[in-house]
Amino acid sequence: MEKELKTWTLAELAQILGGTTQGPQDLPIRRAASMHSSEPDSLGFAEKEEFLAAIEASSIGAVIISESMRETAKPCIRVARPREAFGKFLALCVVPLPIEAGIHPLACVSPEADVDPTASIGPYAVVEKHAKIGAKVRVYPFAYIGAGCDLGEGTTIYPHAVLYQDIKLGPSCVIHAGAVLGADGFGFVWTGSEQMKVPQVGSVTLERYVEVGANTTIDRATAGTTFVDTGTKFDNLVQVAHNVRIGKHTVIASQVGISGSTTIGDRVVIGGQAATSDHVTVGNDVIMGGRTGVTKDLLTAGPYWGTPAIPFGEALKVNVLSRKLPDMADKLRQLERRIAELEKQS
Amino acid sequence: MEKELKTWTLAELAQILGGTTQGPQDLPIRRAASMHSSEPDSLGFAEKEEFLAAIEASSIGAVIISESMRETAKPCIRVARPREAFGKFLALCVVPLPIEAGIHPLACVSPEADVDPTASIGPYAVVEKHAKIGAKVRVYPFAYIGAGCDLGEGTTIYPHAVLYQDIKLGPSCVIHAGAVLGADGFGFVWTGSEQMKVPQVGSVTLERYVEVGANTTIDRATAGTTFVDTGTKFDNLVQVAHNVRIGKHTVIASQVGISGSTTIGDRVVIGGQAATSDHVTVGNDVIMGGRTGVTKDLLTAGPYWGTPAIPFGEALKVNVLSRKLPDMADKLRQLERRIAELEKQS
Amino acid sequence: MEKELKTWTLAELAQILGGTTQGPQDLPIRRAASMHSSEPDSLGFAEKEEFLAAIEASSIGAVIISESMRETAKPCIRVARPREAFGKFLALCVVPLPIEAGIHPLACVSPEADVDPTASIGPYAVVEKHAKIGAKVRVYPFAYIGAGCDLGEGTTIYPHAVLYQDIKLGPSCVIHAGAVLGADGFGFVWTGSEQMKVPQVGSVTLERYVEVGANTTIDRATAGTTFVDTGTKFDNLVQVAHNVRIGKHTVIASQVGISGSTTIGDRVVIGGQAATSDHVTVGNDVIMGGRTGVTKDLLTAGPYWGTPAIPFGEALKVNVLSRKLPDMADKLRQLERRIAELEKQS
Repeated sequence: MEKELKTWTLAELAQILGGTTQGPQDLPIRRAASMHSSEPDSLGFAEKEEFLAAIEASSIGAVIISESMRETAKPCIRVARPREAFGKFLALCVVPLPIEAGIHPLACVSPEADVDPTASIGPYAVVEKHAKIGAKVRVYPFAYIGAGCDLGEGTTIYPHAVLYQDIKLGPSCVIHAGAVLGADGFGFVWTGSEQMKVPQVGSVTLERYVEVGANTTIDRATAGTTFVDTGTKFDNLVQVAHNVRIGKHTVIASQVGISGSTTIGDRVVIGGQAATSDHVTVGNDVIMGGRTGVTKDLLTAGPYWGTPAIPFGEALKVNVLSRKLPDMADKLRQLERRIAELEKQS
Repeated sequence: MEKELKTWTLAELAQILGGTTQGPQDLPIRRAASMHSSEPDSLGFAEKEEFLAAIEASSIGAVIISESMRETAKPCIRVARPREAFGKFLALCVVPLPIEAGIHPLACVSPEADVDPTASIGPYAVVEKHAKIGAKVRVYPFAYIGAGCDLGEGTTIYPHAVLYQDIKLGPSCVIHAGAVLGADGFGFVWTGSEQMKVPQVGSVTLERYVEVGANTTIDRATAGTTFVDTGTKFDNLVQVAHNVRIGKHTVIASQVGISGSTTIGDRVVIGGQAATSDHVTVGNDVIMGGRTGVTKDLLTAGPYWGTPAIPFGEALKVNVLSRKLPDMADKLRQLERRIAELEKQS
Repeated sequence: MEKELKTWTLAELAQILGGTTQGPQDLPIRRAASMHSSEPDSLGFAEKEEFLAAIEASSIGAVIISESMRETAKPCIRVARPREAFGKFLALCVVPLPIEAGIHPLACVSPEADVDPTASIGPYAVVEKHAKIGAKVRVYPFAYIGAGCDLGEGTTIYPHAVLYQDIKLGPSCVIHAGAVLGADGFGFVWTGSEQMKVPQVGSVTLERYVEVGANTTIDRATAGTTFVDTGTKFDNLVQVAHNVRIGKHTVIASQVGISGSTTIGDRVVIGGQAATSDHVTVGNDVIMGGRTGVTKDLLTAGPYWGTPAIPFGEALKVNVLSRKLPDMADKLRQLERRIAELEKQS
């Protein structure tokens, strides 16, 4: 059975996007085009001459361009801001993973859970006792919602996400597949003969609009809660250790590791594979380049790089000079020779 | 439905922890306090004056302090060792993820599996043929226990952990959500036209008291077994490649990568994002700082850092000096000028 | 109940591997030996005298050696190429995870999915509408096959792998446990007050013979498709961001991160924990050492290391010299003193 794609005519899209068209008004458009697309039912956008030329040379169906862009034989929609219009079109194309309203007969929901009638619980989802599932929440197959969890309105839990007990998600969070919230923090004490586990009895709290990438792990606090504030976004395979606190609207790229009891501010941007030591503070508006290693507090806003992290410009200079070490070593040897020569003469 | 928390009175806790109290004997305590807590039913601890002052300024219900600590108006329990007593209290607070004894009707257990009557198999768990599930083992929902696996007494498998076939877990292991034990080792041989898979027919063996973090992966051996000895602990998102052997009581932080056929000793401590090359040996009591890269054998106990790993003090010196490269380059240029001047004069 | 292992006699194996035997012809062999094996029913191989001696000293049952190797009292099979013969034996030992043909009654398959009658769908697998499951495909328990996915003939989806909607897998792919294909690409635009999500409406396409390791994540494209060509292999915990394109027969080790819109060529080899920036191109036959960081195009074949990546030999030289920074700093100070002395004299 073929999947049916939404279809718009070029004219319909022009109206939705607030633009004017050239070319066949009834051209069917079914998908967004990328740099490598060639489908005649796809719609791309071009802000620059070179991208327009590339689209003209392709079999892409139509293009969004600005009002001032040159004439083109390719069917087009002219708007004031092509990128923004394309973003709107992308939003139109979104087809959520299918899920039926209500509790699927193959879901396993505790009679002691509190599920809003407008929520959707998919087949093979588990919702444990005392969990509270808010309005319009979607819990996809194989999601595990532990005892005492509290999921705010409109939150989405993708297949295979695991929430251990007592996790709180503010409204409108998105938890991607395989993410694990609330596994035990990594706390052990060496007794002289073995690693003794420090019980981890806290929880994890995400405020609203937090998005957590696939296979990312956010550990429960030893006591109290590991806390992520409104609007913060995590990419895939990120590690957030116990007792961490992260501010608002922070963006954390893939494979970053945030060590225990560290505090990250608001609007921080953290590049891929970066990391922090435990118990450090990263201030608001700090930008950490890819693989930066923060080993002590970094309180002043601005870009940083390297391990330990230093201001980006400095780190770049050090990096460039490190590549000149062979030259410097040569020069040192030459200078030594010249000095020896002078010493002989004197 | 509200979750019911365990409740103790201050007096009961004082008795359990072997201390004496000041303040209301019947004060209800329901949870452990953290640095950011404010619940009046929470109990914290303070070893230092500043932490006691912070707790006094908060609405935390009560505090564990040492016998010699100054007087306080905050309800308190005085003990010899506050941190230890708090650890005991944490252990009291632990509420395991709920699971019923026996095989849940929604579990899928092979009739050829051997499940101890005291084990718990949750809904939507799969236990394949010839698997042996020991006494008091807990297998949570969505765990996959492959054919021929052998789980020792008291082992816990959290939701979504996957054990491919023939994995052996000694008694009292803990496998967190999303961990994968026994996926194929990464072995391919370039034939001149393609990457030919080397079949991976070995297994994975964890001895007793091994804990494996969320989404950590431990690959099966090519032949024989990937082996982890008693008491070793893995944080989240760690990679252990095929044929690796790890000793006793070793602690491996998040996002570490251990390459194929490497041997790690006893009581080794490996910092976050560190890695080893394949076929190397790391000796007993080695400490690898965060992101250390071990490229050849490291047999002598002690702390190491950098890539390739060198003794920590040396690595720190190199790291500090690398940040002075701009100064060194300047100095080199100055010396060159001064030498040229001298040469002109001579 | 005991698992039954396949059993061969030494004579049978000699015939299968095209060799000649010495020792008891009916010696039962049931498994491949590793360096640490000791089972008398295991078969190892030795290309060098030292390995043969080690096997002779062990209780391993038998050994594959070359025709020219010295005499041994250990039962043996002599062949032209021992390593190749051992590889063949490994292939004989493979026992796939059990799965029954057809759709398991505990699977949840949409009536609008198209499942080939020779495919196997395990218990607790979900196959959504419009998904197409090809001949001999194996979908293990807890796999989630999203709406509109298309799985080519002979592809294997291990337990807990997640395919969001519209993922295309060419024939003979292997997706290991916990891998996530098609989670949203990490695209957000800072509006001045929040991170606005860029809808991710593209898909993921893997051509034939692609293998994806456990807990690896490959994100869907913003539009169009994230693309991996024939024969490319991913180890565990790798991150592939949206809009990436990867060529044929490329090998990517564990914990590597490929950033958005990057292009990787054919036969590239990427060492563990390496990473690329976004929008860069890595050419055919490039070899990136462990933890290499590619920040701009790397078009010429050959080995590279360091961050930013430079030719391996150069990087090694820089690395070695960096460890001599303390010496260089000393030398600089000495030269400065000697120059000052000369200046005094002149």
